Amino acid sequence: MRVLGVDPGLTRCGVGVVEGMAGRALTMRGVGVIRTPADLPVPDRLVLIERGLESWLEEYRPEYVAVERVFAQHNVRTVMGTAQASAVAMLCAARRGLPVALHTPSEVKAAVSGSGRADKAQVGAMVTRLLRLDAPPKPADAADALALAICHIWRAPATNRLQQAVLAAKESRT
Amino acid sequence: MRVLGVDPGLTRCGVGVVEGMAGRALTMRGVGVIRTPADLPVPDRLVLIERGLESWLEEYRPEYVAVERVFAQHNVRTVMGTAQASAVAMLCAARRGLPVALHTPSEVKAAVSGSGRADKAQVGAMVTRLLRLDAPPKPADAADALALAICHIWRAPATNRLQQAVLAAKESRT
Repeated sequence: MRVLGVDPGLTRCGVGVVEGMAGRALTMRGVGVIRTPADLPVPDRLVLIERGLESWLEEYRPEYVAVERVFAQHNVRTVMGTAQASAVAMLCAARRGLPVALHTPSEVKAAVSGSGRADKAQVGAMVTRLLRLDAPPKPADAADALALAICHIWRAPATNRLQQAVLAAKESRT
Repeated sequence: MRVLGVDPGLTRCGVGVVEGMAGRALTMRGVGVIRTPADLPVPDRLVLIERGLESWLEEYRPEYVAVERVFAQHNVRTVMGTAQASAVAMLCAARRGLPVALHTPSEVKAAVSGSGRADKAQVGAMVTRLLRLDAPPKPADAADALALAICHIWRAPATNRLQQAVLAAKESRT
């Protein structure tokens, strides 16, 4: 499976494409950051993020999109920008009919490093090792996007079984 | 000027189109609510909101879009949905090159009722009177969208002067 991971943000939106399956070697197909100028009005920044994501979806044709789940308990100003950027990511994916999965930061950290409280450096080091890269991807947002994609590939078998069970339960009721 | 007001929300996104100028009579061109089912995944709900807003923009061709400014201090779950819906509204407007203005709930209340702490019923009653309607628009989200559009029309002269001053200052520096 080919997954686009998105670490949403208005100033830096990390994007990374990973291909692989649970239990097999993973391959990085692409990594980068969509940046928007802080002095631009938010609506214009969202348009730039949409354009950036569209070109990544167009070029890499992922089958799944994994977006970091945003919580509101963090810094108020930052979280609004993150929520807005993640809305654009979810919209771009769903508009193309791609399944969107949301993973929390601690799910991602636990998946790649074994600990939900791993720091940025640990996540970067594990991403580097798992994808057999020469150096950790920079900035951290790019590494986080790859970690999201890896997390999705590894969690997918469980998630899919869960979704199938929910669907089956719904169908049996109708 | 013709303004589309958007009261963003995932379950009910209020929309209202008002035409007029500060100091002149106002006319309602349209009012409604874009609804999305609560049992649908968020990405799919955002796609429905985008489609709904696109059809309003297409039909009413507003020159400005006024969106309620979202704050993060309210209910955590609700605020994320509101932030996501408002991101879609900002994106749809900016993508068409339409200027987007954000107004806070208290700015809107103060503009239409004279008090920043007016309740839903007072806002509904003032919107009804100002637009010479037979009854307050239902649900409240629809009335709020009209109030946003009215607020924008009345605040526009001041806002425009401010924007022109900022632009002039920027140009004189370059």
